[in-house]
Amino acid sequence: MSGEKKSGRERGEEWWRTGIIEMRPGVIRMRGYEIQDLIGRVSFPAMIWLMLRGELPTEDQAALLGIALGAAVDHGPQAPSIAIARMAATCGVGINNAMASAINVLGDVHGGAGEQALSFYGDIAAAMDGGAGLAEAVSSRLDRFFAGEKGYVPGLGHRFHPVDPRAPRLIELTRAFAARGVVSGRFADIAGAIEAEVATRKGKSIPLNIDGATAVIYGELGFPPPLTRGLFVLSRSVGILAHAWEQSAESDRNKGPLPKEWLWAYTGAPARSFPGDSE
Amino acid sequence: MSGEKKSGRERGEEWWRTGIIEMRPGVIRMRGYEIQDLIGRVSFPAMIWLMLRGELPTEDQAALLGIALGAAVDHGPQAPSIAIARMAATCGVGINNAMASAINVLGDVHGGAGEQALSFYGDIAAAMDGGAGLAEAVSSRLDRFFAGEKGYVPGLGHRFHPVDPRAPRLIELTRAFAARGVVSGRFADIAGAIEAEVATRKGKSIPLNIDGATAVIYGELGFPPPLTRGLFVLSRSVGILAHAWEQSAESDRNKGPLPKEWLWAYTGAPARSFPGDSE
Amino acid sequence: MSGEKKSGRERGEEWWRTGIIEMRPGVIRMRGYEIQDLIGRVSFPAMIWLMLRGELPTEDQAALLGIALGAAVDHGPQAPSIAIARMAATCGVGINNAMASAINVLGDVHGGAGEQALSFYGDIAAAMDGGAGLAEAVSSRLDRFFAGEKGYVPGLGHRFHPVDPRAPRLIELTRAFAARGVVSGRFADIAGAIEAEVATRKGKSIPLNIDGATAVIYGELGFPPPLTRGLFVLSRSVGILAHAWEQSAESDRNKGPLPKEWLWAYTGAPARSFPGDSE
Amino acid sequence: MSGEKKSGRERGEEWWRTGIIEMRPGVIRMRGYEIQDLIGRVSFPAMIWLMLRGELPTEDQAALLGIALGAAVDHGPQAPSIAIARMAATCGVGINNAMASAINVLGDVHGGAGEQALSFYGDIAAAMDGGAGLAEAVSSRLDRFFAGEKGYVPGLGHRFHPVDPRAPRLIELTRAFAARGVVSGRFADIAGAIEAEVATRKGKSIPLNIDGATAVIYGELGFPPPLTRGLFVLSRSVGILAHAWEQSAESDRNKGPLPKEWLWAYTGAPARSFPGDSE
Repeated sequence: MSGEKKSGRERGEEWWRTGIIEMRPGVIRMRGYEIQDLIGRVSFPAMIWLMLRGELPTEDQAALLGIALGAAVDHGPQAPSIAIARMAATCGVGINNAMASAINVLGDVHGGAGEQALSFYGDIAAAMDGGAGLAEAVSSRLDRFFAGEKGYVPGLGHRFHPVDPRAPRLIELTRAFAARGVVSGRFADIAGAIEAEVATRKGKSIPLNIDGATAVIYGELGFPPPLTRGLFVLSRSVGILAHAWEQSAESDRNKGPLPKEWLWAYTGAPARSFPGDSE
Repeated sequence: MSGEKKSGRERGEEWWRTGIIEMRPGVIRMRGYEIQDLIGRVSFPAMIWLMLRGELPTEDQAALLGIALGAAVDHGPQAPSIAIARMAATCGVGINNAMASAINVLGDVHGGAGEQALSFYGDIAAAMDGGAGLAEAVSSRLDRFFAGEKGYVPGLGHRFHPVDPRAPRLIELTRAFAARGVVSGRFADIAGAIEAEVATRKGKSIPLNIDGATAVIYGELGFPPPLTRGLFVLSRSVGILAHAWEQSAESDRNKGPLPKEWLWAYTGAPARSFPGDSE
Repeated sequence: MSGEKKSGRERGEEWWRTGIIEMRPGVIRMRGYEIQDLIGRVSFPAMIWLMLRGELPTEDQAALLGIALGAAVDHGPQAPSIAIARMAATCGVGINNAMASAINVLGDVHGGAGEQALSFYGDIAAAMDGGAGLAEAVSSRLDRFFAGEKGYVPGLGHRFHPVDPRAPRLIELTRAFAARGVVSGRFADIAGAIEAEVATRKGKSIPLNIDGATAVIYGELGFPPPLTRGLFVLSRSVGILAHAWEQSAESDRNKGPLPKEWLWAYTGAPARSFPGDSE
Repeated sequence: MSGEKKSGRERGEEWWRTGIIEMRPGVIRMRGYEIQDLIGRVSFPAMIWLMLRGELPTEDQAALLGIALGAAVDHGPQAPSIAIARMAATCGVGINNAMASAINVLGDVHGGAGEQALSFYGDIAAAMDGGAGLAEAVSSRLDRFFAGEKGYVPGLGHRFHPVDPRAPRLIELTRAFAARGVVSGRFADIAGAIEAEVATRKGKSIPLNIDGATAVIYGELGFPPPLTRGLFVLSRSVGILAHAWEQSAESDRNKGPLPKEWLWAYTGAPARSFPGDSE
């Protein structure tokens, strides 16, 4: 533009500028690559990586990303997101709408645990970058946690599973990828050290959960904490779709949370007359 | 413009043209009226009417619209929309998000009955405009319904209430407004004639439900059928907000559809080994 | 229950307990009142109040609530929520879906200003309850704001309107209701004192905006800050519906943000070959 | 249960029955497989297949599914879904909420073309199963289309791309997989025959688009038409996430569709006085 006044169209087109995709008639480029050069040559997880990070991953990096994405696809209909997908599927809306209502609730509580875990690991990694040893950095972060924050140590413990079967398997795979030099193994070390230190302090084991384990992988692969939630959405969308689809084969209409002959308990004001009405 | 080429900015601004609202710095006009002239002088239902229809209603018209909007605000947590609002409120999302996930499921099955009822009434009204008598027009439309369509006659019957207590009250009020000349009473007549004819054909009464009754009012007031669903969304949003708000005062986190110590019944493939693994 | 073990059904029904609505076949009670006693006797804003607060408002209270709800229904298609509603309406989804996508974005930035303003006023009111005078309480809260918080003083200023025409009208009405004893006028005083003190400190007037003004009304009426966002959703839903409806009468399909012959500016990596491919 | 009356808990648990996932403390099984047996041994597309179909795909089938999923991840910010994701990301909501508002609009018009294309192919396949030849089955289906349906032949043509660069590449890959016996190639034949016949009838080429090409792959792999939309949601979610993420790094707040100094064109009623007010 070199100092020239922009035309209205240029101003409008700049308002929607992006570095992700370039298009002209007959041409689609993702991050600079022709789409037809990518199709069939990079895996779906590699495409996800390219879109989010701007560069192609190695095949090993893409494989590890795919492992984390595949691990968290579903946790059953007692998860609000899955129940919502199933109920929505009986209300006369499209499958995309059912998915949207469900994905929408993957918020701080339902979808944010991985983000919190990776931030926690990141604080420890930063302390180590500043010269602290692993044990010292973990201990100091946990001191701060127990002093001032409340609730659960991010990434540890599960209300239902004594040991979440996904977590040890994900850590085992992370260590295998680290052994081959794909990742450093640093976040696996940090998570393991947190787990051990908490066990020592509490006198009982509170093992790593799925959010803690996927956060390890996302951290090893260099994803920033807030993207962890986005990746979880991509992952859980699979279960959400599967349940919406399964439900849509049933004849239920307006499926409620309880069997249809049940009601809910009413706990409010007793029956009363409208003010001024005689009884 | 008179033949002149439009500038880019003009083209962009026209892309988003609307006849609803006009704005300049310090000026907001709705349908031509200064916003400060409307505030405090028209009721909330009258503002809804103005926004949707382009002209101000009479006070009586606005009052009747408000009656229909107030009647359908809630039907309890066994309605999927209400259950979704409550579950969403425990997932760490904003109250607007909880409301959106819930409103989103007011689709053809959960939110479309009023639209279907008003279309049905409209077919009969059109036949009457073409010269048919009420009984003839109703009978002929029902013949067509029973011959080719399936399910329930739109606006009649309720799976839970033998008589929906809202419906007779709404019809009574519509007739009172008709007696005062606010509306014609034509849609109340049509709904009543449908109800009577179905009772005769079926040999039992299948009374008007809330959707049939609000459709009568929306039809009397001149709203087209598809707006009926939009009005229902405005109405049910109130219950959705009330339930999300009540739930947010509780300590539940990730509230599922069943008590948390319950699971779901599994009906799928039995436990099996990964292909090729020995057992 | 008196110590007896609950049946499964009782446990399930309690899981969904609520104090808002009671239902039995043929019976619907809201907050203890028969629905048919409410219909036609309370206005739509009064029904909103009853649902959210548990008790019926006076007619004057309901009227003032309706005034605030009616004031914020729309701010035009440059608001993301309105643009989203219009684009969604061209994508082949229901009007409830278009409304949901739009309402969903009324978050901290787009829909949270009223909540922030009312919290700010509430801090000042609490200081006054503790014995501080109005000027002192305002000054001390603003000291804290300018020392530690950043951005705009909640409820003041508008990026587009030098004076938002809705705000002075809403304050004028609030004062009229206060003069009649409907409300105390305390929050109007607080907002006015903030406005004056900020003008003194900044050397220029930064007038109250719509969020600050509706927060005054909601505060006068006793609504807690988080409900302010919910009430804003109810209000803006009207404009969202009106725009979705207007758009749905047009022939656009998949309406994008810019005129369809425009693209977006691409700012990313230049065109490049897939790794290993010769150019 | 064998005739015994079910307990309330059993009834509640059956209400949420599913064949997708089985869970007990420490145990998670997907479609009968232990989750830890799946993690690291099946690709992400294979996990998607297992969840949706109930059985594991071959590696080749999963690879072809991944190709289709990777091809449709993004089509830039002029697509309403992408624009919505970017605007939502500036409104103070979570990344899951921004994704939900966007995914929600992938309806019949924005997200349904693949479903329509696959249904169209399926009609032709069914005619061939009934004994018709390819050319005859295609011709007869197109006769019906041009006689009674309107708009575009499903899967053909693009408003922007003379030739969509993704489509020929996807068909080339489908044929390569067919040559290796992974799929039959039947849907590629059908799509090719439709393309050729339409070109003959119209006297000009209207080439296959991305929806037509992915529908070929989903059909080859045995997915039913309605799942096509669900798969598209999984695919486009990647672009939606990438754009929401990119936008969230910018400082925009409440980003509207047009540059912020622009307005929209107002086309409605001229400025007018409130009824009864003197001018």
